[in-house]
Amino acid sequence: MEKKAIQDYYSDQMSHCYGCGRLNDLGLKIKSYWKENESIAIFKPKPHYTAFPGFVYGGLIASIIDCHGTGTAAAAAYEFEGRDMGSEPELRYVTASIHVKYIKPTPIDAELLLKGKVKEIKGRKVIVEVKLFAKEELCAQGEVVVVKIPENMILKSN
Amino acid sequence: MEKKAIQDYYSDQMSHCYGCGRLNDLGLKIKSYWKENESIAIFKPKPHYTAFPGFVYGGLIASIIDCHGTGTAAAAAYEFEGRDMGSEPELRYVTASIHVKYIKPTPIDAELLLKGKVKEIKGRKVIVEVKLFAKEELCAQGEVVVVKIPENMILKSN
Repeated sequence: MEKKAIQDYYSDQMSHCYGCGRLNDLGLKIKSYWKENESIAIFKPKPHYTAFPGFVYGGLIASIIDCHGTGTAAAAAYEFEGRDMGSEPELRYVTASIHVKYIKPTPIDAELLLKGKVKEIKGRKVIVEVKLFAKEELCAQGEVVVVKIPENMILKSN
Repeated sequence: MEKKAIQDYYSDQMSHCYGCGRLNDLGLKIKSYWKENESIAIFKPKPHYTAFPGFVYGGLIASIIDCHGTGTAAAAAYEFEGRDMGSEPELRYVTASIHVKYIKPTPIDAELLLKGKVKEIKGRKVIVEVKLFAKEELCAQGEVVVVKIPENMILKSN
C-alpha cells in the first residue's frame, strides 16, 4: 500500500478540513490510502463521538465516509489522468451529495475500516461508494457524489 | 415557540449523543424546537468545523441535519400519538439513512437555520425533510429516514 496518505498530498490551502485536514489541529485527521482500484482508511473514534453509550455517532460515520470519498475521488482522478498524486494543477473535490445507510449499530470500541471504490468518473464529477466495517461486519454504506472544487470556493480560501 | 428543546426531553440514557446530547460535554448540543408542523434549530458552528477556510464542513452539516431529523421525528411521534413530549414510554429514534444535497457552499460566519418537516410517519418509521439556511439562502437539504430505537441498542446502553 502507498505509504503517504492521499490527504497528505493536499496543498496547505486545502488542508484545513475538520474531517481530513492535516492543518486542522481540532479535526479528525482521517487518512486514506490508495491502492490500485480501492482506497482504505482506518479510524478509531474517540469515546465522545457516541450516539448512545457503546455506539458510534451517525454524524461521525457520515463525516468519515465523506472525507474518505473526496480523497478517493482525488486519487482516482490523478490515476485517471495518468498523473502523480499531488502534481499541479491540484485535483481536489467537494461533496455535492452524500447518502449513508446505517446497516448495523457501529460499536465504538472498534477500529473502523473504510473501503472506497469509484463507481463513476466523468467530467468534473466522481461517484464513490464507501463501505464501513467494524469487527469485520458491514455497519454502514455510503455513496458520495463529488465535484471538482468550484472556483468560487478556491477564491474565498485565499 | 416551545421554550424547552426537544432534546431536553430525552432521558439521561438517551442524552449522550455527540450531536444533540445535553450530557455530552464535548458535543454539539443541537437544540431543536417544535411548533405545530415544523421544527426549528439555530446552530452557530465553531471555526474549526471548516471544510475550506470560510465554509462549513459537510460532515458537520450532515450531523446537525441528522440530529435535527431524529428530534423532529420524536416530537412528531408524540404529537401523532396525542402524548406529551417526554412521557413514558420514551419515543426515541435512530437514523436508518441520511441523504444530504449540498446546494451552495455554507458560510461559516453565519448562524445556520434548520427547518424540519415530517414527510411520512408510519409504524416505527418516520421520514423527515430538513432544509438548512445561512444568510437566508438555502445551502443544504437533507432527507433523514429514522426508526424507533431498536431494543438491542437500548439494552447495550444500560
